Amino acid sequence: MSKRIDKRKELFQASQMLDEMGIYNEQGHISVRTEPEADTFLINNHSSPGTTSLQDFVVCSVHDSDFPDSVPSETIFHAKIYEHRDDVNAICHSHSPYATVVSSVGLEMRPVHQGGVFQNGPVTIYDDYNPEGGTLITTEREAEDVSDALGMDQAVALRGHGPIVVGESVTHAAIISIKLEYNSWLEFMQASVGSPWYLPESVIEGNLDLAFDERKMLKPLDYYLSQSG
Amino acid sequence: MSKRIDKRKELFQASQMLDEMGIYNEQGHISVRTEPEADTFLINNHSSPGTTSLQDFVVCSVHDSDFPDSVPSETIFHAKIYEHRDDVNAICHSHSPYATVVSSVGLEMRPVHQGGVFQNGPVTIYDDYNPEGGTLITTEREAEDVSDALGMDQAVALRGHGPIVVGESVTHAAIISIKLEYNSWLEFMQASVGSPWYLPESVIEGNLDLAFDERKMLKPLDYYLSQSG
Amino acid sequence: MSKRIDKRKELFQASQMLDEMGIYNEQGHISVRTEPEADTFLINNHSSPGTTSLQDFVVCSVHDSDFPDSVPSETIFHAKIYEHRDDVNAICHSHSPYATVVSSVGLEMRPVHQGGVFQNGPVTIYDDYNPEGGTLITTEREAEDVSDALGMDQAVALRGHGPIVVGESVTHAAIISIKLEYNSWLEFMQASVGSPWYLPESVIEGNLDLAFDERKMLKPLDYYLSQSG
Amino acid sequence: MSKRIDKRKELFQASQMLDEMGIYNEQGHISVRTEPEADTFLINNHSSPGTTSLQDFVVCSVHDSDFPDSVPSETIFHAKIYEHRDDVNAICHSHSPYATVVSSVGLEMRPVHQGGVFQNGPVTIYDDYNPEGGTLITTEREAEDVSDALGMDQAVALRGHGPIVVGESVTHAAIISIKLEYNSWLEFMQASVGSPWYLPESVIEGNLDLAFDERKMLKPLDYYLSQSG
Repeated sequence: MSKRIDKRKELFQASQMLDEMGIYNEQGHISVRTEPEADTFLINNHSSPGTTSLQDFVVCSVHDSDFPDSVPSETIFHAKIYEHRDDVNAICHSHSPYATVVSSVGLEMRPVHQGGVFQNGPVTIYDDYNPEGGTLITTEREAEDVSDALGMDQAVALRGHGPIVVGESVTHAAIISIKLEYNSWLEFMQASVGSPWYLPESVIEGNLDLAFDERKMLKPLDYYLSQSG
Repeated sequence: MSKRIDKRKELFQASQMLDEMGIYNEQGHISVRTEPEADTFLINNHSSPGTTSLQDFVVCSVHDSDFPDSVPSETIFHAKIYEHRDDVNAICHSHSPYATVVSSVGLEMRPVHQGGVFQNGPVTIYDDYNPEGGTLITTEREAEDVSDALGMDQAVALRGHGPIVVGESVTHAAIISIKLEYNSWLEFMQASVGSPWYLPESVIEGNLDLAFDERKMLKPLDYYLSQSG
Repeated sequence: MSKRIDKRKELFQASQMLDEMGIYNEQGHISVRTEPEADTFLINNHSSPGTTSLQDFVVCSVHDSDFPDSVPSETIFHAKIYEHRDDVNAICHSHSPYATVVSSVGLEMRPVHQGGVFQNGPVTIYDDYNPEGGTLITTEREAEDVSDALGMDQAVALRGHGPIVVGESVTHAAIISIKLEYNSWLEFMQASVGSPWYLPESVIEGNLDLAFDERKMLKPLDYYLSQSG
Repeated sequence: MSKRIDKRKELFQASQMLDEMGIYNEQGHISVRTEPEADTFLINNHSSPGTTSLQDFVVCSVHDSDFPDSVPSETIFHAKIYEHRDDVNAICHSHSPYATVVSSVGLEMRPVHQGGVFQNGPVTIYDDYNPEGGTLITTEREAEDVSDALGMDQAVALRGHGPIVVGESVTHAAIISIKLEYNSWLEFMQASVGSPWYLPESVIEGNLDLAFDERKMLKPLDYYLSQSG
């Protein structure tokens, strides 16, 4: 039980931090497996990430899509991603503005800065929406499609909606969410004045090797926590 | 009488919130019918929305355009809209910057994001100004024209000036004002780097169905109130 | 003497307000005649407008260009403008960013919004610099040229440097500085996504008539003072 | 020893100030020779500039590249620059966003405003990366190349990464870092709406002569310190 409380604290802290950084606005959700490889996960209810309290995270099952009423209608894509990706323990979905703009307008989502490197290859952009639900991903079929579009990557972007980011841990998913928004901001600014200069592929590999050791994740975490609250 | 006090509190709260979000600057007005279908309404006097107090809202008549000196010269368009639209109980007029830019420059005002969906069809842009009053809407004829341009929509935009948004309640009008500015911001950013990607019409219908149940309005309201004051 | 103290208080208050609004950065100066039609004026010394105290304003003479060491080298253009314009009692010079960008890049400085109307006709852009002083206006000849470029207008813009705004009072000059920066911001945004839509000339006249009665100046002043300090 | 403490205080103060101004984010480093012409220097460890404490600055040797584990892997380029430039006593390396965007996208880095003048000629842009280290400068050869690219200038920009700025003192390097970011911001905005208007060369010389006397450096320092903390 105390493990679950710790998970709630992790979600709470990440929600606050990402909200203060402008990654979240009144919309967005964040989830984490109750423990590694578990088939249950915690997700925020209808409260906004920036206004959640510890009690606002609800347990859902990976395999049973009959979710409690209090969770977002899009909880289904969290379940499907956890089902297909044993390595994923946490998922952030936001409407972070620059990632949303870049993915909507038809620019490639590729690193323009070392601080934006988190996977090999561009982020896939998904827009095969089922009209009934608008741009929301609320059916099993769409959730499967989004999970397929993600594949073995760290992020997929819903066009006209926002990115979904996955990680081995809440910290990992949060930091990739920050990197994606940061890179999108720089790419947006470059595209405002010319053609974005994407990092050469050979260089991306070098940066990727350096991006996710423990120290590399603690540094931004320390910094952004110092800025918030 | 206590109903009118409650209406003043609603206007005050919405004015503060929209000011802190950058929807209002030193200009702008907000009004509400004293009760549903009433032919009187409350509107802020010459004070800016962000600096009003409860005493700064003045009662005006829908049918008598001989308004008190203390109200804005544009109070006439509030009266005309209330006259023609029984379903409208509240009106926000702001110079919110991105909606103003998008409507001025000749871009279509259509949703580029699910968070910007609030009506079917684009927002009409009005620019048939009577030169004597500049871009202000101060005569009965212009107020009728603006009311016609609005039609049965939720918003109309005055070119080189700013949007007018109507709703069933103060909350409804305030949230649509937020959605319009949010969508305009994303559309502006998309247009800075390419051609905006507008949501397909079929998808808009789906999003619209989901946009205005009570929970959908309380969520952003909770969030933005938590950010202000 | 107490009149001069009042003038210092006016300059101090305007300096603080314009600094908090981003009109001033670490550079900029503001001056006022010690009384209407006087041939002496007060100007801030080398301190930034946002960090001045009442003691930081220094008395200079309109006709004697042998200024105290403690005042900016550009004090000469204040003197020349006061010499040629009896109607001018206050001058603001800033590097306000959007006005500086718009005037540098070759866009016309004309109103795109009713809130940006403060004179008939576009703002003149000056760039006939004497190379020795860089883009600073430090010689009598340049100061005369800048005063000529201003003519009977309310503002002139130094290319690659920043605007000079004049008024009948500190409040008048401060509010025109705000209007110029506000209009430049909107014009900049419009130019980022298309061609700016300038207000038709007939409409400008109508807006101009309404722009500078006492109430029209007190409203933004109330608002921006409420935001600062 | 107390001299070294004073140097730590200088680095701490500049780190805080540049962080609050958005020059630094969670990344970046700053160094200073322990005294003029010394072959040892102090540099921040893996903490972000905005979260360092006095204890977080570590002494390194100019000639011995076997640095302590706790310093950034890029410390090597600080050493090489100190080795080649006796006149340099302080170095700032940041990912300041506008300088990074301008240098990445292929615009020339030249002054568009008098406040952006700090050297004759444009800032050199470096992008000859050794793929193994990604865009990080971690080998002696790359550090030599970057030092060559800097030459006798005050700044060099790493494409897709960020600028390196050098100065006679911490204050000098900090103020040039501010000027470079400020100019890049204005240049970025100009390029968003047209072609940047670069200052004529003759004018640059005039501005350069005026840029670095003591008073010219104290004024922005006073201002930006008043804004931070």
